[in-house]
Amino acid sequence: MARTRSFWGWGYDEERLTRDEIGRLAERVAPLIGAHPAYVEPPVAAELDLPAPRISAPTSIAPWCAVDDVARAGHTYGKSFRDVVRGLDRDFRGAPDVVARPPDEAGVVAVLDWASEVDAVVVPYGGGSSVVGGVEGPPDDERPVISCDLGRLDRVLEVDQTSRAARIQAGVLGPSLEDQLRVHGLTLRHYPQSFEVSSLGGWLATRSGGHFATLHTHLDEFVESIRAVTPRGEWASRRLPGSGAGPDPNRLLLGSEGILGIITEAWMRVLSRPKFRASGVARFDAFGAGAVAARALGQSGLWPSNCRLLDATEALVTGAGDGTTHLLLVAFESSDHPVDADLARATELVADHGGTLSARGHVAHDGDDEAARWRGAFLRAPYARDALVCLGLLNETFETAVTWDRFEEFVDTIRSTAHDALRDVGAAPAVVSCRLTHVYPDGAAPYFTVIAPGAPSGRLSQWAQVKGAVMAAIAEHGGTVTHHHAVGRDHRAGYDLERPALFAEQLRAAKRVVDPGGILNPGVLIDL
Amino acid sequence: MARTRSFWGWGYDEERLTRDEIGRLAERVAPLIGAHPAYVEPPVAAELDLPAPRISAPTSIAPWCAVDDVARAGHTYGKSFRDVVRGLDRDFRGAPDVVARPPDEAGVVAVLDWASEVDAVVVPYGGGSSVVGGVEGPPDDERPVISCDLGRLDRVLEVDQTSRAARIQAGVLGPSLEDQLRVHGLTLRHYPQSFEVSSLGGWLATRSGGHFATLHTHLDEFVESIRAVTPRGEWASRRLPGSGAGPDPNRLLLGSEGILGIITEAWMRVLSRPKFRASGVARFDAFGAGAVAARALGQSGLWPSNCRLLDATEALVTGAGDGTTHLLLVAFESSDHPVDADLARATELVADHGGTLSARGHVAHDGDDEAARWRGAFLRAPYARDALVCLGLLNETFETAVTWDRFEEFVDTIRSTAHDALRDVGAAPAVVSCRLTHVYPDGAAPYFTVIAPGAPSGRLSQWAQVKGAVMAAIAEHGGTVTHHHAVGRDHRAGYDLERPALFAEQLRAAKRVVDPGGILNPGVLIDL
Repeated sequence: MARTRSFWGWGYDEERLTRDEIGRLAERVAPLIGAHPAYVEPPVAAELDLPAPRISAPTSIAPWCAVDDVARAGHTYGKSFRDVVRGLDRDFRGAPDVVARPPDEAGVVAVLDWASEVDAVVVPYGGGSSVVGGVEGPPDDERPVISCDLGRLDRVLEVDQTSRAARIQAGVLGPSLEDQLRVHGLTLRHYPQSFEVSSLGGWLATRSGGHFATLHTHLDEFVESIRAVTPRGEWASRRLPGSGAGPDPNRLLLGSEGILGIITEAWMRVLSRPKFRASGVARFDAFGAGAVAARALGQSGLWPSNCRLLDATEALVTGAGDGTTHLLLVAFESSDHPVDADLARATELVADHGGTLSARGHVAHDGDDEAARWRGAFLRAPYARDALVCLGLLNETFETAVTWDRFEEFVDTIRSTAHDALRDVGAAPAVVSCRLTHVYPDGAAPYFTVIAPGAPSGRLSQWAQVKGAVMAAIAEHGGTVTHHHAVGRDHRAGYDLERPALFAEQLRAAKRVVDPGGILNPGVLIDL
Repeated sequence: MARTRSFWGWGYDEERLTRDEIGRLAERVAPLIGAHPAYVEPPVAAELDLPAPRISAPTSIAPWCAVDDVARAGHTYGKSFRDVVRGLDRDFRGAPDVVARPPDEAGVVAVLDWASEVDAVVVPYGGGSSVVGGVEGPPDDERPVISCDLGRLDRVLEVDQTSRAARIQAGVLGPSLEDQLRVHGLTLRHYPQSFEVSSLGGWLATRSGGHFATLHTHLDEFVESIRAVTPRGEWASRRLPGSGAGPDPNRLLLGSEGILGIITEAWMRVLSRPKFRASGVARFDAFGAGAVAARALGQSGLWPSNCRLLDATEALVTGAGDGTTHLLLVAFESSDHPVDADLARATELVADHGGTLSARGHVAHDGDDEAARWRGAFLRAPYARDALVCLGLLNETFETAVTWDRFEEFVDTIRSTAHDALRDVGAAPAVVSCRLTHVYPDGAAPYFTVIAPGAPSGRLSQWAQVKGAVMAAIAEHGGTVTHHHAVGRDHRAGYDLERPALFAEQLRAAKRVVDPGGILNPGVLIDL
């Protein structure tokens, strides 16, 4: 049965929390924030009343260009806290004039041609799950805006079993991609939290972080070649397993967030489906001790597929623990060979650092194990986030990465910066939890989640102050403004402090080459 | 005891083959090429008579700027076949006017300032081991040339044991780098064939391929941050274990071959020294069968540290086999845990593909095992190459990478293209051997070595024709013009066919940002 995509919040209308579930969530949250939250009703289609589009599509492409309010409202924002709040505020002022849904690459070319002709801005749109303002039009730009939705480019076009690679269209969403690969016994095995409503092209354009907690953390390493369309024509790299010929061209498009072209397809390195698994969980009294154990695993060369440390609060909030201890989740998997010996060695390493890794069992095939259940809960979390926003709360995440030498002090600093900033805007008491999403030999990626009572009519300014304070602290203390959420518009202040100044100029110059009119996602990553 | 760097050939004068060794080499080669080669005496310093430099260094930097003939001759070329032939021809017409050896980064800045002022070309020079014309001045450029030798920036400046990372100056050569890390129990474990006379900065600028035959094949993955000096000022990225903030800035400098700045230092991810090893060798009657076994290993997720397939000829020429069978060398290593189980699984996989992997024993510490002996021979091979060139032979290598679906036909095509091209230029009979240097899940990097009798006074034009034919075939059949030797000047024709056309424009634009005068290594990678 076809489901309906929400035009104001996460995912599908049919998947949202029921009124009963929201009630229970409110009960659970009340003691944490010292108040019983009140519910704001989300908008419905009939309330929409957008201004008329400023442009109309040429007849050749008009059949797949939508101008109805629901399509335009649904392409106004991504899915960040800020986006949902603006949706609840019925504020769709920034709606694109037209939502183009090209059926193929030639259609994407036609959209760019039209946009160049009428000097319109083009915002590439995959699954629309950006949480950094990556898919909304520029706020201070007079030009009309076309949201170019790649959703119809949703096929696996070719599978090369010998090289274990597949040519995949950029607009395919996670579940359909996996369905199409499964029939070949293959998987991309990329499970960002946005999996259900994010696309291959979006993952590539934002250097998405996936399932693997170590080694191949970002999707970057799985890219063989990329095809993109730009206002100056096609940009296409060659399928190669490895090369040392100049700077890697793919790496310029990876993370380019739509400013250097619209990715239409890619040859991706895919994987045989895993057959062997082993996993365990360890408890730590101190978060720092758990981090040292995670570091040992990250430096061991065992490359666990999962190596996630949840602090006690995070464990409590997500239902993984009782809030008294910090949890380290460790897992191994392989399509080729048993991984029990890896788990045994991991158990020794964790013990060396004061933890006891208890095996959680291992299963021989996909889908019916604890990891899959956790993944289900993980993927459903954004629906709960929407409910919390409807309940009037502040609910935001900050994710970053930092080297181990700075790690413990860094986490303390970011945690206290968030607490202080929330208190300063009157959003107290606040819950700030932390987990490590990815672990490297030289550092880790801490991910902070904030829940606090919001000011009824001032959540956006509260958000802006807290976000700004945390971004400044991250930059000052040696982290990155984003490990895998991307930069978009919301992380620009931190990004501008982080990237080499000359690199920003080089990026601008690279953009001028392919987009001399500056029509592609202006204001994201850089200003021209 | 200090050794003397050769100004015309590989490495150190003291390490070259003795006259007796050269005689024995000539005896071994004679039956292969059907002629007894004659010896050309290499040049000596007293023969040099270079034109006077066209510029002289300002007094502030003059103390470390050399203008003597030996220094200038020694910085005229890299160490390719073509370079050695030109050296034997006593042709040092392209010598730089000045060899600057700045003592620190401020000195590098001073060199660039001076060069900008007098409109001189600056060629960054690390160990000088380029085999692609990467360190010689532009042939059709009237400007004076300064070779900027980073050799005095040779220190490990800082070690972060917690993050297992080190801040290292770009000019340090392989052996000194490893010596400095060894006292900390660490290693970069990067062993290109040029190890003895190549530098960290050179490895970064050329995306050098190292010791690991799978997984971390290029040095790219070990880079935390880079510092470079450009005519527009400093370019410095932030130490991060991972990030998703825009296109990775490091990836623009990696492979930039000196055209986007002079790398002065980098924070590198280093490794604990390996404690556990296991290795084996399998024989195959058909090269293709060995490749299928290598593919199975490459796709297994076992990530062997060595996985090198030598064809029968390669095995014979290098002394690893008797020339009747093809050899697959497999090894595992770890600083953390025994790897015998990995070798056992590899043995099963090889058996599945018709090979028998015989264990070669494993040792508990570094330096005294077969792999180390092989490495010694491998690192000494370029000295033998020089002797072959002195003996009047053509001796060249072609290295590339291609996906598995094209692999077998591709190798046959390149092999026959090389044979045909050699025959067409009268360089017959020729020996063309092949090995796989690196293995990926989706493809492999074949490396071809050519030995043939050269025309006494026409080896350079023979070389140009053969090189051109092979490059064209590689481009046509879906390979890369270089897997790890870099592009330089010699691979430009193939590179120009391979990289996306718009990417070349973007690279030019990125160069103009940091080098508006076009003084940095002009003509390498791109033309302005």
